[in-house]
Amino acid sequence: MQTLGVALGERSYPIHIGAGLLGEARLYAPHVKDRRVAVVTNPVVAPLYLGRVREALAQAGAQTVPVMIEDGEQAKCWATLDRVFDALLAARLGRDVLLVALGGGVVGDLAGFAAATYQRGVPFIQVPTTLLAQVDSSVGGKTAINHLRGKNMVGAFHQPVAVIADVATLETLPERELRAGLAEVIKHGLILDLEFLEWLEKQIGKLLARDPAALEHAVQRSCELKAQVVAADERESGRRAVLNFGHSFGHAIEAGVGYGEWLHGEAVAIGMVMAAELSVRAGTLRRADAERAKALIARAGLPVRGPKLAVERYLELMQVDKKAAGGQLRFILLDGLGGATQRGDLDAKLVRESIAAAAQ
Amino acid sequence: MQTLGVALGERSYPIHIGAGLLGEARLYAPHVKDRRVAVVTNPVVAPLYLGRVREALAQAGAQTVPVMIEDGEQAKCWATLDRVFDALLAARLGRDVLLVALGGGVVGDLAGFAAATYQRGVPFIQVPTTLLAQVDSSVGGKTAINHLRGKNMVGAFHQPVAVIADVATLETLPERELRAGLAEVIKHGLILDLEFLEWLEKQIGKLLARDPAALEHAVQRSCELKAQVVAADERESGRRAVLNFGHSFGHAIEAGVGYGEWLHGEAVAIGMVMAAELSVRAGTLRRADAERAKALIARAGLPVRGPKLAVERYLELMQVDKKAAGGQLRFILLDGLGGATQRGDLDAKLVRESIAAAAQ
Repeated sequence: MQTLGVALGERSYPIHIGAGLLGEARLYAPHVKDRRVAVVTNPVVAPLYLGRVREALAQAGAQTVPVMIEDGEQAKCWATLDRVFDALLAARLGRDVLLVALGGGVVGDLAGFAAATYQRGVPFIQVPTTLLAQVDSSVGGKTAINHLRGKNMVGAFHQPVAVIADVATLETLPERELRAGLAEVIKHGLILDLEFLEWLEKQIGKLLARDPAALEHAVQRSCELKAQVVAADERESGRRAVLNFGHSFGHAIEAGVGYGEWLHGEAVAIGMVMAAELSVRAGTLRRADAERAKALIARAGLPVRGPKLAVERYLELMQVDKKAAGGQLRFILLDGLGGATQRGDLDAKLVRESIAAAAQ
Repeated sequence: MQTLGVALGERSYPIHIGAGLLGEARLYAPHVKDRRVAVVTNPVVAPLYLGRVREALAQAGAQTVPVMIEDGEQAKCWATLDRVFDALLAARLGRDVLLVALGGGVVGDLAGFAAATYQRGVPFIQVPTTLLAQVDSSVGGKTAINHLRGKNMVGAFHQPVAVIADVATLETLPERELRAGLAEVIKHGLILDLEFLEWLEKQIGKLLARDPAALEHAVQRSCELKAQVVAADERESGRRAVLNFGHSFGHAIEAGVGYGEWLHGEAVAIGMVMAAELSVRAGTLRRADAERAKALIARAGLPVRGPKLAVERYLELMQVDKKAAGGQLRFILLDGLGGATQRGDLDAKLVRESIAAAAQ
């Protein structure tokens, strides 16, 4: 087991990474004293892991109530959130409850937002069971639900008290979700760490073959990189925005084809191809490096071409994306491989061309 | 004009109190730089004050979008909140928006929660137009909506960047709402400041007659007292709970008869009579002082007898109230007049007797 820290003053917390961790009572124990626990999960994850998590929590001395939500991105909405509140209230859980988010990004985002807002805020633990959640969404305290008009439009910054990333759960992950998770891993290399990117280029085969050591390293390094960025800018007033590389385009794709049609990581994969293309056109990335990025994304089995949406539709969808500040579209560009920068001054023409180049 | 401060480190903010303030551009100006502004209000308040607020904001250099919600406690729900999000998204307002809550407690609580969660949090200004909102709900950062199973069950601590309490708005306040606001003013005297309580006993006639100087002092002293408590315990992990004096009983009354039937302040008035009764039975308050409290509440034109609910129904409703920590009911008791203490060890028999004594 490796333990990293997210340094956020009194909101600091550990990220534990290793095989078999979700069943270890000692990782929950520091957080459940005098608390009752509600485990939010879904019918896909529950049969695999809920029993072991509840057992570990019982060993740590906590009574648990399971709260089931539906599987899939469609569940990340107010109706589901309200059902979670209803279950918590029906179980007479007060401000002394601790929530455990057991599942992928949807469970983590939704249960995290439930924790942020139930009775004005209760603590929660992230137990991510997908690669995407382990390397990205469980770290950093971004919680949200979707609105009909846009993804993650309603949410809060609410840091977990701990993240328990059990890499053994990746063994049962559907192939498509494993690949989707790799999109965010590759993103961390592209924007923050050339050395890690080179490691990924060498190890992509092992990662796809679910080599445990390779996966553990990918999770650990991703969390380390993300934790550094989050510690420097918790509420995304500046630097943290680089983590959104590929996401403006990606969110437009998700919204344009309907949430849930494409996995988040798949949409981000295409978004990164578009953003790399835009970086080339804006002069911050060499063409050969953009091709290198695209090649790695393709080798990870991820899509590199967008859905058939009109370019103007992309632009329309991106304008309501929350990264649009003051009506001015902002983009994260690669500044060479392993570096990234935010730009708010790009000619819309360049954006249109980049979408067109990657969208068919 | 008087300006008080709420001392919360980087979340500190001013409370401006005086007649005519909602039309003063200079009070908005420091907060609207590079921001677009959405003013959340309702059809009762808008005809009276929206024009002047928008004019002041325009003078301060901000474009404004009005967002109308329904009047009344029933509006404090997810459906209304979602309509606010929808209006903000339709107007393509991004993270750079600032919300202005123009109205009473419902507008402030709901718009504040919208600000806490829209795109993971945007700043907001409270412009309270009722006595209740000016002396209580606009100060301290508690925001929330109601859930079918309980009041304020979903919310966040989200401090405003400024409170602009224009006491001239109290001239147009319906009589019943003025009285309801006095309940929270009296509460501040009862739990925190015997001298203020004595002032209230002398000035209650002037307050009911809307003497401007008396009202301004009542607002100013209430805000001062509340600000001190909030500064010491922003998230109600301890001392702040004393502000809930009368509220466990009051929330049970509101929930038991249906939100909106009784005004919050009316329910709190009865709740305070019950809590004072409980204080006598628990031995922390003299009978004569409880009678003195009740007499002042009655002189303010507030109810001192509860609705016809079975005692067991009160207890049931209070158990889901969020002040119930770990299943143990906690109560705020008066510790003499001008003092308060939290107790979690009271015999349920005393609670039953206190309700029965005040409920018919």
